[in-house]
Amino acid sequence: MRANPKIGKLVVIGVGLIGGSFALALKKAKAVKYVTGVGRTRKNLTAALKMRIIDEASTDAAQAVVDADLVLLAMPVGQMPEVMARIAPHLPPHAVVTDGGSTKQDVVAYARRFLGAHFPRFVPAHPIAGTEHSGAAAAFADLYRGKNVIITPQPETTARAQQLVRVAWQRCGARIVRLAAQEHDAIFAAVSHLPHVVAFALVNALARRTDAKKLFGFSAGGLRDTVRIAGSSPEMWRDICAANRNELLAVLDDFEDELETVRSAIESGDGAALEHLFEHARTARNKWLKRD
Amino acid sequence: MRANPKIGKLVVIGVGLIGGSFALALKKAKAVKYVTGVGRTRKNLTAALKMRIIDEASTDAAQAVVDADLVLLAMPVGQMPEVMARIAPHLPPHAVVTDGGSTKQDVVAYARRFLGAHFPRFVPAHPIAGTEHSGAAAAFADLYRGKNVIITPQPETTARAQQLVRVAWQRCGARIVRLAAQEHDAIFAAVSHLPHVVAFALVNALARRTDAKKLFGFSAGGLRDTVRIAGSSPEMWRDICAANRNELLAVLDDFEDELETVRSAIESGDGAALEHLFEHARTARNKWLKRD
Repeated sequence: MRANPKIGKLVVIGVGLIGGSFALALKKAKAVKYVTGVGRTRKNLTAALKMRIIDEASTDAAQAVVDADLVLLAMPVGQMPEVMARIAPHLPPHAVVTDGGSTKQDVVAYARRFLGAHFPRFVPAHPIAGTEHSGAAAAFADLYRGKNVIITPQPETTARAQQLVRVAWQRCGARIVRLAAQEHDAIFAAVSHLPHVVAFALVNALARRTDAKKLFGFSAGGLRDTVRIAGSSPEMWRDICAANRNELLAVLDDFEDELETVRSAIESGDGAALEHLFEHARTARNKWLKRD
Repeated sequence: MRANPKIGKLVVIGVGLIGGSFALALKKAKAVKYVTGVGRTRKNLTAALKMRIIDEASTDAAQAVVDADLVLLAMPVGQMPEVMARIAPHLPPHAVVTDGGSTKQDVVAYARRFLGAHFPRFVPAHPIAGTEHSGAAAAFADLYRGKNVIITPQPETTARAQQLVRVAWQRCGARIVRLAAQEHDAIFAAVSHLPHVVAFALVNALARRTDAKKLFGFSAGGLRDTVRIAGSSPEMWRDICAANRNELLAVLDDFEDELETVRSAIESGDGAALEHLFEHARTARNKWLKRD
């Protein structure tokens, strides 16, 4: 096991913000020799080739992985089972597979089922980085600099596979944090999936009104920042909501309870209660930012 | 009526982000000769003096306004009635009064009642600018550059008073937009008051958990932006919720309906419905940003 292994051939399946930035970062760090990008549409792959994110484009995942050293699954999590089943018969016996999915329990279960004998070389991972933009055009080499990448290795996961994935992410400038898959999903339901659902709902509440155009015209930085993440990929978020359904519904309950508490205080004109609620939130947010 | 009147003495009651930035902007534009700041606590006024936001500090609003040319009421809207009643007997007959309150129907009603004979020289206004910070230390001269300032003049409001307030805001770099007070309150309930309430509730939903510290430690830019405005002044937002109660409850209803629609789709595993909802939000947000 070398401390700083160079990856011969990286195959990125799904060359979007996450997959594209991973390839760019490893290229910038000279940690990879050759990158094949796999996608569903030629248009995005052509953009990725032009941006030199990938050296070769393919729409056939099975064929692309036959000589891969590392495979990154960077599609929306709903496509994981199909892609895993498709590549499993063609993966070479040394290839390490990892993913960038926003949920981990479901991805681990899919991998266990569909990667078969390759499962010990699958390292479940989730880079905590992103923007509201998607597609290859949104990718950039420094996306992961200073960011956390959560890995949720399983009892079967080999040390070599973990080491290769750890080092790759470190070469992208990221820090590795290990969590249990269940804990990962509970945490990100709260700090990521809930805020996205809230932002989408907030935009829709305004956008459905007949005066929506006027409303947005009068909005300022507050609304703009609050709903920035409502620009995120609908397909990706559809899959996350399905994959992390139970954890997400639990935190949605908590949020709706909070909203009811505020509503009651507004309805009854309880200024002291409102000020207390807002002060509680401000203090928590400010403390959090200070530590950040 | 001069096109570009210079204000002799400006009195800012409430030297925070809004009032302090107004004074700084007018000073920078050389549109004011002398600024007196009025506040409840010496500490904030001392900071304002040090930052040269104001030339003189006072804790006595009545005494400060006796030779004022323009008075800006920049306290939380809940304090308006008391301050208006306090200054009315002492305002000189030429003085123009304006405010920076986030709600307008209530402020107009207070002014009509408490400013008495001075009401025709009161120009209700709301600068659409701000940050999540508050207090004199947060003030800066360019806060209003390129921003909208809504004015909601009444039938009685004199042309001279409107002109003086218009020009003052224009010298701060702002654009003036005229609206009816009712329309203003309905619009800002949707694009400002609702997002603030949502951001406060979202932080509280996470902050109340026993694992809150860990949660925040794993959060990324998405949550940070979504709850930025939860750092805003609790006292100010308490007053806005009280002042714009009915409009706010109406948009809170719309938002809770949207949230229920998303929740149902998550519960029933309706991926197509979820993707449609998220796509609707993304399209609306992106269109809005494009126009912005």
